[in-house]
Amino acid sequence: MIIALDAMGGDFAPASTVEGAIFAAKESKHKVLLVGPEKLIAEELLKYHKKYNLRSLDIEIVNATEVISMGEHPAKAVRQKKDSSLSVCAKLVASGKADACVSLGNSGAAMAAALFYMKRIEGVLRPAISSAFPTIDGHCIIADAGANMDCKPEHLMQFAIMASLYFEKVFKMEKPKVGVVSVGEEPTKGNELSLATYEMLKKSDLNFIGNIEGRDITKGKADVVVCDGFVGNVILKFGEGLAETMLSLVKKGLKKHPIAWASLPFLWAALKDLRKKVDYRELGGAPLLGVDGVCIIGHGSSNGVAVKNAVLAGARAAEHDLTNEIKDAIAKYEAKVNTVSNG
Amino acid sequence: MIIALDAMGGDFAPASTVEGAIFAAKESKHKVLLVGPEKLIAEELLKYHKKYNLRSLDIEIVNATEVISMGEHPAKAVRQKKDSSLSVCAKLVASGKADACVSLGNSGAAMAAALFYMKRIEGVLRPAISSAFPTIDGHCIIADAGANMDCKPEHLMQFAIMASLYFEKVFKMEKPKVGVVSVGEEPTKGNELSLATYEMLKKSDLNFIGNIEGRDITKGKADVVVCDGFVGNVILKFGEGLAETMLSLVKKGLKKHPIAWASLPFLWAALKDLRKKVDYRELGGAPLLGVDGVCIIGHGSSNGVAVKNAVLAGARAAEHDLTNEIKDAIAKYEAKVNTVSNG
Repeated sequence: MIIALDAMGGDFAPASTVEGAIFAAKESKHKVLLVGPEKLIAEELLKYHKKYNLRSLDIEIVNATEVISMGEHPAKAVRQKKDSSLSVCAKLVASGKADACVSLGNSGAAMAAALFYMKRIEGVLRPAISSAFPTIDGHCIIADAGANMDCKPEHLMQFAIMASLYFEKVFKMEKPKVGVVSVGEEPTKGNELSLATYEMLKKSDLNFIGNIEGRDITKGKADVVVCDGFVGNVILKFGEGLAETMLSLVKKGLKKHPIAWASLPFLWAALKDLRKKVDYRELGGAPLLGVDGVCIIGHGSSNGVAVKNAVLAGARAAEHDLTNEIKDAIAKYEAKVNTVSNG
Repeated sequence: MIIALDAMGGDFAPASTVEGAIFAAKESKHKVLLVGPEKLIAEELLKYHKKYNLRSLDIEIVNATEVISMGEHPAKAVRQKKDSSLSVCAKLVASGKADACVSLGNSGAAMAAALFYMKRIEGVLRPAISSAFPTIDGHCIIADAGANMDCKPEHLMQFAIMASLYFEKVFKMEKPKVGVVSVGEEPTKGNELSLATYEMLKKSDLNFIGNIEGRDITKGKADVVVCDGFVGNVILKFGEGLAETMLSLVKKGLKKHPIAWASLPFLWAALKDLRKKVDYRELGGAPLLGVDGVCIIGHGSSNGVAVKNAVLAGARAAEHDLTNEIKDAIAKYEAKVNTVSNG
């Protein structure tokens, strides 16, 4: 697979993206296109020439003269900067020269670029960011994780179809369990959106398990957790913040108890496992499902390892032909809905 | 203060509520009215007669022949069961015979009973559950935590006024920081509700600090965290679930590392501090702000200590005359809004 990586996206770019590209190329057989200002990327790459045999790695620089920064207005920036690293990445996928694009930068702009150049899949109402979140014995997918603020039930229904397919194809699990975020298990509990979504999901062919409460998310009750992008984003960021706060409280608590503090070095190995589990860097990026091509959006503060994981996530989605699978599934669903409403 | 405690509310009632009443009466000068089937409560109380000098405690049984269970339809149950322990509690406050009522049972029914018997404060559009959540160095108040699913900006504006006052009066902090839950710091980020609420809060006299992202909640960035009851409930329950999951992962992780596992007894003291911090039982119940009288709604799985904390939370709110403070603040705010719109 050929992955177009926005070399200028992310808080630590291009250092993190160039390092991530090297890691990905070393670990896999995929080709990585480093998209950005040619000279700058070449200089960054050169820093690694002593450590790695760069010629043996399948990495290529694709020149892009402009950069979209974090603070810029997404749609405006994409419209104006047609030669930005991000826009060029999206164009590479749209023209078939790359199988996936990956950006760790301005996520609003990444969505705008994907929509502008790669377009929506026919029938898809709104593309959704499908973000992985760790559970006690694996992880779940939260869709939407922030692309769409105010949603309708039919949007959430499509998020469920697309994220189920992502889980099924990429994570190799048949009939993943789908739950809709709500405030109680009973079908009568929820807000207008969750109640109406419940009714639509109940009639679908998905493995719908009903409402899922906040407390059940990390318990792994559902594989696909459906909600609007406002709720999904708040959950994800709240989880990140709470995990950080808890680890720092554990540390602070240990300090109060000298014997426990003395055992910290031994404890560290155990905590490292936990940190790894709740660390977004390990989970790679989140695909923007519903656009016509693979687009992976990663965390802005990604380091080299996180960038590598995002690149590999893009390659996996492309290998499993996720885009065409979604095309078929949405077409089938829309045909079914139209038959019912006409019949 | 005289506190009416719904002795039949909660997963472990009446054992937990009777124990909680004893703890509260022992620890404070407040009188606790145990409301429920007279005979049953008396029998439960008798179990403690060897351990405590019951006569020295200011506890009284108030008979109520009916019980509203967890599964019942809130409004219907309250309308039909006029002699339920919950309804009698609300009536005791409405008639001035008690200063606060406390229930750990069906929270929807508790709200319905409070609204039915105590009524809304004039000018209050929707009462809000204001729940405490631990932060790294204290706690914040989340309003609304589940009373109102679909809200308008003017509802959230009132939640902010009422919860600020609660923080100010009961927790003795001047000008608590108010934030509105959103997906980014920038005023342009959010959904329709958060964006419109931002504009209203910006013009208010509250100490508004702007949008607060999910990750900032446990960092204590805001004292009063404003959102609709759907989002608030999901956040609270997600936090509860994640904290549990993390502690069990820490334990599991420790088991994998024999030396760390051996240090567990020493570590336990440190973890206990943490557990206490994230334990809802320590935080007592949440007031339903905006009804004409103090009504505290506690966690269904409350034990004796949690019930005691909920009773003491009720007494504190009553002592600080929270209801009249809210009356004044809402009247002032409404007068200001009307002047502006007429002027």
